Parts: sequence; C-alpha cells; structure tokens
Amino acid sequence: MTRDTSTLKTAIIENFGTPCAVIDLNVVERNIKRAQILCENAGVKNRPHIKTHKSPLLAKMQIAAGAKGITCQKLGEAEVMANNGITDIIIATNLLGAARSGRLASLQRRMPLKVCSDNLVSLAAYSDAAREAERVLDVMIECDTGQKRAGVETPREAVALAQVIRNDPMLNFVGLLFYPSKDSWPQTQVFLDEMVTGLASVGYEPGIVSTGGTPNFANVGKLLGATEHRAGTSIFNDRMMIKDGFATQENCAFSVYSSVVSRGGEERGILDAGSKTLTSDTGGLQGFGLILEYPEARIHKFAEEHGFLDLSKCTNKPVVGDILRVIPNHVCVAVNMFDQLVAVRDGEIIEVIPIEARGMLV
Amino acid sequence: MTRDTSTLKTAIIENFGTPCAVIDLNVVERNIKRAQILCENAGVKNRPHIKTHKSPLLAKMQIAAGAKGITCQKLGEAEVMANNGITDIIIATNLLGAARSGRLASLQRRMPLKVCSDNLVSLAAYSDAAREAERVLDVMIECDTGQKRAGVETPREAVALAQVIRNDPMLNFVGLLFYPSKDSWPQTQVFLDEMVTGLASVGYEPGIVSTGGTPNFANVGKLLGATEHRAGTSIFNDRMMIKDGFATQENCAFSVYSSVVSRGGEERGILDAGSKTLTSDTGGLQGFGLILEYPEARIHKFAEEHGFLDLSKCTNKPVVGDILRVIPNHVCVAVNMFDQLVAVRDGEIIEVIPIEARGMLV
Repeated sequence: MTRDTSTLKTAIIENFGTPCAVIDLNVVERNIKRAQILCENAGVKNRPHIKTHKSPLLAKMQIAAGAKGITCQKLGEAEVMANNGITDIIIATNLLGAARSGRLASLQRRMPLKVCSDNLVSLAAYSDAAREAERVLDVMIECDTGQKRAGVETPREAVALAQVIRNDPMLNFVGLLFYPSKDSWPQTQVFLDEMVTGLASVGYEPGIVSTGGTPNFANVGKLLGATEHRAGTSIFNDRMMIKDGFATQENCAFSVYSSVVSRGGEERGILDAGSKTLTSDTGGLQGFGLILEYPEARIHKFAEEHGFLDLSKCTNKPVVGDILRVIPNHVCVAVNMFDQLVAVRDGEIIEVIPIEARGMLV
Repeated sequence: MTRDTSTLKTAIIENFGTPCAVIDLNVVERNIKRAQILCENAGVKNRPHIKTHKSPLLAKMQIAAGAKGITCQKLGEAEVMANNGITDIIIATNLLGAARSGRLASLQRRMPLKVCSDNLVSLAAYSDAAREAERVLDVMIECDTGQKRAGVETPREAVALAQVIRNDPMLNFVGLLFYPSKDSWPQTQVFLDEMVTGLASVGYEPGIVSTGGTPNFANVGKLLGATEHRAGTSIFNDRMMIKDGFATQENCAFSVYSSVVSRGGEERGILDAGSKTLTSDTGGLQGFGLILEYPEARIHKFAEEHGFLDLSKCTNKPVVGDILRVIPNHVCVAVNMFDQLVAVRDGEIIEVIPIEARGMLV
C-alpha cells in the first residue's frame, strides 16, 4: 500500500529529523535501468561514476543491472568500493596525493586498478606505486577535446605518454579517457582517429575508450571507437539535469526533506537547509534548488544552515513546521554533505544506506 | 626549530595525501586570544560559535582562554560538544527537526540547554521536548534588525513571544539573540531599548543579550545592554575576513594543501581540490580561494574534485606535483568538508584533530 506524502514526511522527521536526504528506490531502479539500456543500445559498456552516490550498495545495484564496472574519482572512493567486493575500477584522474602517501600502492597490491594520467609526473608516481605494490598498474591517458579540463590537448602528446608507459615495465597502457562537451563530439572523433593511428605506430590499440557525463547520454555511441560510457548523476538526477532536458521531476530520485523553521516576514521564510546541506553550487541556475511543494518559491540565498525563501510569487505560502522536499541544483555535491541516505519505496521507509565514501578527499 | 615550508609540505603529502586541511596552532592560539581580548575590552562575555571548527578540542581551547561557553547551530553539534564535557551551550536557531525527532529532549534530559525561537511553532515543540526531558528549557528570542534572516522583526512580536514563554511552565525566558549587520547597530539599539521596556511590562529583564559575527568585532560593545558576543570565523579567518579588513593573510590559520595534478595548457592548471573540498561559496569574491604561493593565480572554476587555475597573470607558474596552500573564501564551509584537521606548529606536524561535529545536520 502506498502511503501518502504527509505520512511519510512525519515518519521521516520523527525518525531522522530534518534536513534529511531521501531517495526513492523505485525511481533509483528506473534510473539505473535507463542508463544501462542507453549504453546497451549504443553498443558500449556501462561504467557508472560512483561520485554521485558514494555507496557500495548502490554501486552493486548498478553492476547487478549490467554495468561492467565502476568509475571513481578518488583513491579513497575506490578503497571503499574494493572493501565491499567491487573489483573492476577506473579512477578517472591524475592521482598524486594518493600515490605519494602510499595509499595507491596499498590498494594496487590488493587488486589491480586502472588509473588515469595526462602527464609525466603522475606516470612516474604510478610507476613508483606499482613497484611498491609489486603489481603492474594499468594506465589510461586522459584527453581533453575542448572542455579545458584535465587531459592532454593533442593526440601527439597522448602518443608520447603512451610511449613512456610502453617503456616502463611497471605500467601497462589500457585506454583513453574522454569527456567531450555535448557539442564537441566531432572534434573528439578527429582526436580519437588521430590517436588510433598514432598508437598503432607504437604498436598499441586504443583499448578502453571511455566517454563521460549524464548529459552526454544524448551522444552516447556517436563516437566511433568508444567502448564505454561513465555517467554519475543519472542514478539520481537533479535540477541541472531537468534544465538539460535529460530528466523530468519524476526522474529525480533524491530530495532533501527540510523544515520551514521561520517566517520572518510576509514574503519570506527560512528552511533548515543551507549551504552546509545543499551546497552553493548554482549549476548555472537561478536559486538553490527546486521545492516540489512550492515550485514558485525561490531559495535565493543561503546561510550555512538556513535557506532563505522568497515567497513573493507564491499564492499559497508554507507555514512554520511544514516539511518541504528540495531537489538540489547539483545532486553529487549535495549527497556528499550527508552521512546517510534514507531509502523509501511507495511511501514507506525501507532502509538507511550509509554514504560510505562520503568525504573521501584523497 | 622551525622547519621550512617545503619540508612540511612533503611531510603532509606523505602522511596524509592531498588535499589536506591544515591549521597552524600558533595562529589559532593568537586568534583565540584576540577574540577573547576584543570581548573583554568591550565588556561582554565571549561565546564563540563552534560551527567554524566543529571540534571539541578547539572549543575547549576557547573556553580555557576565557570564553563563557559556546554557541552551536545544530543540536547534533551540541551533542558532540556535550559528550566532550562542555556544558554551557546556546543553540542559536529554531530547532524543529531535532525537537520532533526526540533528540532535543534526549540532550536536554542530560543537561540544560539554551535554545532560540522566533515563532509559536518552535516554542510549542520546545515545550513538548522539555516535558519529555522533565527539565524546564531555557529559551532566547531571536530578533532581526534588518538583515532579513531568522528573527522577529518587531519588539512587539518579541514581547508577545516572551509572554508565551512566561505562561508555559516548561519554558524559561533567558535572553535575546541579535545578528546586526555592520551598519545596523543604531536600529538594533532602538530595537533593544524598546524590548527592554516591553519586557519590563511583563516582568522580565532581557537576560543574555547576544550579538554575533566576526566582522561585528568592529562594533562589539557598541550595543548598550549587550552581554555576550558570538563569533565563529575569527578562530581561523579566511579570504572573506581579509576582504572585510578583520584579518590579514598572517591571521589565517587554516589552509588546504593541494597538489597541482595537471597543466593542460600554457596558461592553465588543475588542483586536486574542487567544490567537494573548498565548496562553491564565493563570499562575494572573485575566484575560489587565495593561493599563498601564487596570489596572482586564480581558481576560476570548480569541478567536484578539481580546481581550475587561470595562470595567465603569473610570471612564474606552478608545475605538476607542486603543493599549493589555499586559503578558502569561506572557512566554515570548507572545514565541514573534511573529517580531520592536521595541526602544525613551527613547521612540524603536531597532531590530528578530528572534526567530530562535521556533517551534524540535524
């Protein structure tokens, strides 16, 4: 039996207080399946990025739905996932702190990782870590095709790094990591094609060719030669993904249940969720989150523990004590503020999921 | 013997990796003393806000330096502080989630708290919690004098709430909470004076009269009748406090040690500290933090785990592997991203301080 929203809200606040991070398992499961099908239809493997949920339990749900493995952004995230039995992990960035502190070697000794590099310094650190771990380390080369993020900017540089990897007995080249913008797929194809030629000249095939991003599900499969896609946000979605057109409100699995704690003036109110709960990420949007019950209300400013509501556009206005559900602008950073997710289904509280890799900064 | 910066940086990354939150204990101690003296010179008690450091150890240093007690913003913060033996606590906001989940009653049963209210709903919740705790609850009334934060907007409303408290055998009126802006002290004086008259009419004296904010140290003591000041940021300071004129770089005790992990282009670079480390709080400033080694470099954008450096203004540019110290725009939210602070003195690592109240959202 599906319980009504107000009964669930009462159960949430009486069991957990507010603010409280809640996920709807029905929506989560639909979102996991959707990402899997989008990848399968495009003929690429699905390797979800766990930065969004940071939970081994949810990562395992993704793998059970068909994902080949997972993507992490931090060594600490990979440690948590490895401790929970997940073995096929790409860490999608240059690791320096984790390498120099010995944590990369410790994990690599336990199980083979795939790490990424765009420079000689991280390659040297990887080589040291692999030697310490006594296990050859798989390395992907990160390539930038116009986003001006990490990544080498030319196929020539990428091939040069591949040659360094080839000459290092402790490193093994396994692929290329891309993060094209939504409209940079044509130049990404040019980059990849040149890479394939360049790599062939040193005796390599490209191996894994990974594209990334939830908005890029619109393009998945368009890069000829791509073998995998890694997306994070699609498991929960958020206000940015609604704006992007990838999601509707019904696809948003995560919301923060927050109490109206003050109504200082006729046109304003205050939520007990501020920048330490929802974060100041704007995602290019106006206001800090979508309030499901009062979509015309605007969270126009944050204090650390307060969200300031502009209610001037609301015909009906919330009163002190009301519990409102807020879909954050950017769910990945909002999840990272909590230690646990309360999982609900059909209006019932099902379980509490610890966000085990929360705050894994190294 | 004071060790040099590069030796310390190496020790930090080899022991903890990067990014790493570091505090300089010499600066922390000077900052604690400075806040205490500013309050003493103004004739008010010092009641630091622990939201900035969230550490019982640092709260006890503040109390040892003369602070009368502490201020918390969340019940969960007060729980952590109480578990560590701190007994004089104001929680400076309307608590609804903590009241309705039973946590307020649990803590109030163990020790008497002082809580704040600006409305009848939180007063009713407090009354219920006090009854459950079998201990009368001390309540302050939060007043807004132009900032449009929480707080009643008129002395008349404040007196009406005081009368409600007076008529409730489980509640006890103990004072007034203000957070004037830097230039709203004159109207705060008018508000307070009217309050004193109004309260006298119902047989009350104002009790504790608390002002707040590190920038307001410039005004502390100017409000006749104020008895306490609560400031958080001054223990560490940050880029906002430098801009405000309260602090210089030398007064900033907290910095994030971060590695340059990529130099994708001539004019740009990438740090391993992004919005999940330093947060997207701008504090009204350009860029996301001050890099001590390259003050002319600008962190112009964040990914979750990357800070994007604009190096176009730098004569010398950092290289991959360099460790840079970043003073965040807003230290209170940056501390909240870490589980621990590495405390150093004279270039030596002294201890690791757990941020025990981090993420206490209820």
